[in-house]
Amino acid sequence: MLIEDDILKPVKVGLCGLGTVGSGTVNVLTRNAAEIAARTGCEVVVEHIGARRDNPHCDTSNMQVSRDIFAVAEDPNVDIVVELIGGCDIAKELVLKAIANGKHVVTANKALIALHGNEIFAAAKEQGVSVCYEAAVAGGIPIIKALREGLAGNKVEWLAGIINGTGNFILTEMRDKGRAFEDVLKEAQELGYAEADPTFDVEGIDAAHKLVILASIAFGIPLQFDKTYTEGITKIAKADVEYAEQLGYRIKHLGIARRQQNGVELRVHPTLIPEKSLIANVHGVMNAVMVEADAVGPTLYYGAGAGAEPTASAVVADIIDLARGIESDADHRVAALGFHADKMMDTAVVSAEQFESAYYLRMSVDDKPGVLSSVAQVISEEGISIEALIQQQPVDGEETVPMIILTNKTIEKNMDAALQKLAQLSSIQGEVVRIRVDSLDA
Amino acid sequence: MLIEDDILKPVKVGLCGLGTVGSGTVNVLTRNAAEIAARTGCEVVVEHIGARRDNPHCDTSNMQVSRDIFAVAEDPNVDIVVELIGGCDIAKELVLKAIANGKHVVTANKALIALHGNEIFAAAKEQGVSVCYEAAVAGGIPIIKALREGLAGNKVEWLAGIINGTGNFILTEMRDKGRAFEDVLKEAQELGYAEADPTFDVEGIDAAHKLVILASIAFGIPLQFDKTYTEGITKIAKADVEYAEQLGYRIKHLGIARRQQNGVELRVHPTLIPEKSLIANVHGVMNAVMVEADAVGPTLYYGAGAGAEPTASAVVADIIDLARGIESDADHRVAALGFHADKMMDTAVVSAEQFESAYYLRMSVDDKPGVLSSVAQVISEEGISIEALIQQQPVDGEETVPMIILTNKTIEKNMDAALQKLAQLSSIQGEVVRIRVDSLDA
Repeated sequence: MLIEDDILKPVKVGLCGLGTVGSGTVNVLTRNAAEIAARTGCEVVVEHIGARRDNPHCDTSNMQVSRDIFAVAEDPNVDIVVELIGGCDIAKELVLKAIANGKHVVTANKALIALHGNEIFAAAKEQGVSVCYEAAVAGGIPIIKALREGLAGNKVEWLAGIINGTGNFILTEMRDKGRAFEDVLKEAQELGYAEADPTFDVEGIDAAHKLVILASIAFGIPLQFDKTYTEGITKIAKADVEYAEQLGYRIKHLGIARRQQNGVELRVHPTLIPEKSLIANVHGVMNAVMVEADAVGPTLYYGAGAGAEPTASAVVADIIDLARGIESDADHRVAALGFHADKMMDTAVVSAEQFESAYYLRMSVDDKPGVLSSVAQVISEEGISIEALIQQQPVDGEETVPMIILTNKTIEKNMDAALQKLAQLSSIQGEVVRIRVDSLDA
Repeated sequence: MLIEDDILKPVKVGLCGLGTVGSGTVNVLTRNAAEIAARTGCEVVVEHIGARRDNPHCDTSNMQVSRDIFAVAEDPNVDIVVELIGGCDIAKELVLKAIANGKHVVTANKALIALHGNEIFAAAKEQGVSVCYEAAVAGGIPIIKALREGLAGNKVEWLAGIINGTGNFILTEMRDKGRAFEDVLKEAQELGYAEADPTFDVEGIDAAHKLVILASIAFGIPLQFDKTYTEGITKIAKADVEYAEQLGYRIKHLGIARRQQNGVELRVHPTLIPEKSLIANVHGVMNAVMVEADAVGPTLYYGAGAGAEPTASAVVADIIDLARGIESDADHRVAALGFHADKMMDTAVVSAEQFESAYYLRMSVDDKPGVLSSVAQVISEEGISIEALIQQQPVDGEETVPMIILTNKTIEKNMDAALQKLAQLSSIQGEVVRIRVDSLDA
């Protein structure tokens, strides 16, 4: 056996929640116990499980199981409380209780961190314990660690992530198979990728939770979910996917955090990105985060963003981090958000009208002379220049033709003004579709 | 200012070597001092530089500079010695001196770690100091951290990396522009990507240094450079690049470490990989490492593998790691190779004849009936099955035609036997080109 007698005393884990990720975590800790002990320098033991019911996907027959999760946070033998129950109210109560009892916390709960992280981290600092949340963003990809530690010598310029697998699955299927949004969503629900109520995924709320966490670490700013601009993928039409393709782009649902002159942009929205960029080639339910930083330049991190064991991989990495340093004093641990609490930046979060972006516009215009010039004039009046244009030939019997425009970069306020004027043009029928374009350049 | 009075005492860096990476490191530490202090909780100061000459790319006018690098390792004020002089002999002496003097060490020197790491880490453990080497593999990509910490809950199955930028630049140019190896190598030398003597890069020695380090961390095995199989890219012909393309593959120079039944394979060689895989789309001088692990599945890490500031990014990350934990006792730091020294695995490194791989074969065969069947028979006699075949139509005046074969996976011993028999066939003219194929599947 690998485990010898002269090693440090075992680290005892209390695990709350035995759903998909909870059972995955028990299974990984059990299956890889020898490797984990060899890496940690001590055994990592599941001391106590709190779960309302058993899970047939993991064997807890030799473990202490309570139906009351709070019993785990109160257990004097537990060193680390792992919160995997999800949701915000009880999870927050549990985490704060564990902290008050002097226990380290590991959580996979992005909503909890995005919405209540500032309060939770302050409580943890007060008690001299750590709260780890690698699993909260992009599942098994060690992106929190990369940003907090691996790139710690850099000023981050921007990051852009595919951080919702459901959304990426839908957009991938739409592109690969020419399917419609609703059709793929239905399949995603049948496959278990999407919830019965898919709002969190397809409207970008889940991605916004994750983006807020990434941005906070990248820029050293407090968690500010309420200032994040969020736009879903429900209005993306097959036609947009196809025109994007013709223009050399793919549509991805990105979370983008970018440092600009006036502050930091925090935004989640469908985005046209160059088809040759590595992140445009991240398909299906996979996640990836691209980071542009001043010293290292561009880096990219790719992997499974969800699922039992990929998420457990991140949960267990956090447990090992804590076990490796569990007796070191709080001043010598990595700060919760990378930057020390009293050294956070007060960089402003810029409002949507200040975003800097290029744009894709699609509109139905009357098939008659002069239309292009009137559209181009409106756009140019707002100081926006046109980079590419597709005007389709009319189909017999149709009185309108699609016109697609790619603009250069501008301030969103200017684009909003142009869209208002375009809405006045009698030669444009129906709404103008607007999707942001990002070249993902430095 | 960000830096307040009540923080921990400054951490003092002694930096040896003021070449490309040395000057990059000074510049990053200086430019990003405020962010680094906010992340670390203390100031990180360049206390002493050892360099034979100044470097116009960085300003050291306010720093103490010695022409004798050993003065840095002897300086009682220095907490961390950063070795950036390269080479093995003096670098090893310097690092061991620094360790003996109770200083932590950061190095970007892959040859030093690959060849002398076991000895250096043992000395560091003895003295209770850390030796960090994130910059030694894949430049700015935090791949050491990902493997040692981010994936610490996993059993790694295999990893495959583009870990030499020069080689990848050459193969990328050959594919994109149909250029010949020698032609691109000459340009790479002019651009400063390749040395005047390009052996280390194009023969895979540099990649083997890095692979050995990655494999050691992934599998918990000692560093074993002498057991690594190394094959360069000098024999890759334009024709192979083109046939690979026709078959849906790209040729990349990969470092591969894979767990199989008999032990661990450690190998560096040109490899055909599916053109759709993400790592096949890593172009030019960029690096990427793909890791397949039991819990998380596949993950990929991409970024600049060389250059002043990308490499400095990794050096500074190591400095920050040390600064964050500098007073914690040695038992609670991450072990040098991820696994604790007394818990390393004694997994065997398998010999080349035991490698498991699929193969690409290209040969010139006489343009007459029966040739294909005799070639197929030889291959099948060794228990190898053919997955795809291209036989070109003869060109006027040529008596031979190229035949290209893709085989299924087999043991290298079988392929060697088949190649020996093929060499006996009178219908094959000249040598049979053999390149390994990897589907990069789980």
